[in-house]
Amino acid sequence: MTLTTAIDRPSKTLRALREQGPLVQNITNFVAMDLAANTLLAVGASPAMVHAPQESAEFAAIADALTVNLGTMEAHWVESAEAAARAAIAARRPWVLDPVAVGATGYRRSNAARLLACRPTVVRGNASEIMTLAGLSGAEGKGADSTVGSEAAVEAAQRLAQSSGAVVVVTGALDHVSDGMRQVACANSHKLMTRITASGCALTALTGACLAVEEEPLVAALHALTIYGVAAERAASRSRGPGSLRANLLDELYLLEDDDLDQAARLT
Amino acid sequence: MTLTTAIDRPSKTLRALREQGPLVQNITNFVAMDLAANTLLAVGASPAMVHAPQESAEFAAIADALTVNLGTMEAHWVESAEAAARAAIAARRPWVLDPVAVGATGYRRSNAARLLACRPTVVRGNASEIMTLAGLSGAEGKGADSTVGSEAAVEAAQRLAQSSGAVVVVTGALDHVSDGMRQVACANSHKLMTRITASGCALTALTGACLAVEEEPLVAALHALTIYGVAAERAASRSRGPGSLRANLLDELYLLEDDDLDQAARLT
Amino acid sequence: MTLTTAIDRPSKTLRALREQGPLVQNITNFVAMDLAANTLLAVGASPAMVHAPQESAEFAAIADALTVNLGTMEAHWVESAEAAARAAIAARRPWVLDPVAVGATGYRRSNAARLLACRPTVVRGNASEIMTLAGLSGAEGKGADSTVGSEAAVEAAQRLAQSSGAVVVVTGALDHVSDGMRQVACANSHKLMTRITASGCALTALTGACLAVEEEPLVAALHALTIYGVAAERAASRSRGPGSLRANLLDELYLLEDDDLDQAARLT
Repeated sequence: MTLTTAIDRPSKTLRALREQGPLVQNITNFVAMDLAANTLLAVGASPAMVHAPQESAEFAAIADALTVNLGTMEAHWVESAEAAARAAIAARRPWVLDPVAVGATGYRRSNAARLLACRPTVVRGNASEIMTLAGLSGAEGKGADSTVGSEAAVEAAQRLAQSSGAVVVVTGALDHVSDGMRQVACANSHKLMTRITASGCALTALTGACLAVEEEPLVAALHALTIYGVAAERAASRSRGPGSLRANLLDELYLLEDDDLDQAARLT
Repeated sequence: MTLTTAIDRPSKTLRALREQGPLVQNITNFVAMDLAANTLLAVGASPAMVHAPQESAEFAAIADALTVNLGTMEAHWVESAEAAARAAIAARRPWVLDPVAVGATGYRRSNAARLLACRPTVVRGNASEIMTLAGLSGAEGKGADSTVGSEAAVEAAQRLAQSSGAVVVVTGALDHVSDGMRQVACANSHKLMTRITASGCALTALTGACLAVEEEPLVAALHALTIYGVAAERAASRSRGPGSLRANLLDELYLLEDDDLDQAARLT
Repeated sequence: MTLTTAIDRPSKTLRALREQGPLVQNITNFVAMDLAANTLLAVGASPAMVHAPQESAEFAAIADALTVNLGTMEAHWVESAEAAARAAIAARRPWVLDPVAVGATGYRRSNAARLLACRPTVVRGNASEIMTLAGLSGAEGKGADSTVGSEAAVEAAQRLAQSSGAVVVVTGALDHVSDGMRQVACANSHKLMTRITASGCALTALTGACLAVEEEPLVAALHALTIYGVAAERAASRSRGPGSLRANLLDELYLLEDDDLDQAARLT
């Protein structure tokens, strides 16, 4: 398989975001809406929080990408997300699934299974979430809810990618991306990011934006991780704590320079 | 028609906000709630996010002003907003309509038409939104969804003001306000504001607060634009990017001095 | 009655938060979710915004504490909150009730009465809210909705604590805590905090976290007030206005040192 873009050139994707300003529809949780929208705006994309059942599918057909985050789902939102995902697929638009805390309750497992059946282009979660989802997809017996080592998550990501057809992103101290055959890791980011709510959800939104401008999902997912991770590193170096980190993160996303970004990327 | 307050004295309205601390009810979208509430608090007003059908009309009768933003509407919220708008009118309280992305889906056009029929005191939107709304109000054939030039939007604002009876605000590089006869423009603001989510929605909330303390809607709308625009300019001059801009915007709204404000106002 | 921890040692509770990282479930309002979640993360706790009827009780049984905030309730959320509160009680987990603007509408009074009947461990509100709630609990005729002096609220807090069995926190210029017999006041905080939306709601979330690691509710409530108040004082001293205060508040919560905290506590 030939990649359309070198994975060590995230600047190409960032430049495309700024030039094309893709419209990204987000069906996301109440906590994440603000940071997700501001993350998209900071890189030049155009966020739209559209989740009402009366309009979600209609909008998905005109948006450049869709992201679905299961953090605070309500019954009619799940139906709305399914309809939007199907409309995105029908319009050949990419979409990203973020199965927040999927292992915590039966309702979350059920919602995630329904959305996984709508064939997401990318799935992004932490190690526990991807392990649980790999189980739900039939690739193994039963998902584990507990915190698990990244080794196990890498294998789960590969199985999930194979069974679902999605590129799978596992975020953690080291981020892993798998399309079922290839595995690439990204070492950019900073541990203080775990003290900001919705920092993973905002990355999901950014991944949607990158998918809109880079046709190879594996590359788009890696570039989203790199853009976000490099901005996080720079923001953390200027921050006293999580309050200033959040503001600095958006500033650094806005200020990223192409050459700096490519040199700062740490992909293995 | 005689204005009760000189349009070049936004300081009078700002002082009234701080002295009277008007209670502003907001039925707004999930992304905007935080910035809208913090904008109101920064200028001395008291925000209340009250949208449940069981209480929205009851509350509208005791609030000093109401704002309705159609960004993330659900079916029962639309009914709630209609009831609140009618209660506000009955209690002779001003209310503001913000038709977010009204051209994007049929659901949004339908919601906007329903609320426009409840006779808002002020309508605030960008050029595309005001063009679409002018079409829905019967002033022209069919609203345009695409980005349009400000010339066309100024005419649409005038027609919408005449057909609806509302003062109409079109925000953009230059902001325009029309009551159907008079047109005034405000040149304050900064383009980095377009990189903060809900910056328009927060202006809508501030417009509601100004209407509560200044009885002439045209003047209240202009003073909201000026207060917000001058604070935005000062905030932008201290900011590295959109993350710091958002924090600085609230600081500058809080710190605005009367004389500085009047001198900084650029109305034409 | 013997207290398990000295009330003038908030550092013990802060250390426990950082070491144990309690999982705190929050059914809170749309405006408060972001600041509440970030406040919990800043002190080392783990926030979960879980309010769907399909999962709220299931989750409450695994969370270390629950907080319920009535700021923007919908009908099915009220049922969800009742179920979660009952599940928390059944699992012997503490829970906190925050009756936002309970005096404003009949719907709010009704919701608050329903939740108060589910025996919260702690109730936190401002003077008007606690006065109203004391009336709803049968301790007096009818709650007052207007702003009232702190003297009257202290008496109302005592009566509410006696009739409900909860520890009652009244926040204001001086914060008061009562368990029905004992009254303790905390003088830490800063008046600029009243210009940040959801600052009281975030304190409610922090109180839930403290209850998860300190078994004496009176002490946990006081330590939450002290931790939050000392961080607020330090944040305010570095801030130009409410925008920077919000970021600095989270930084200071993250940076608090044990010894400094105990010395800064002003309890009477």
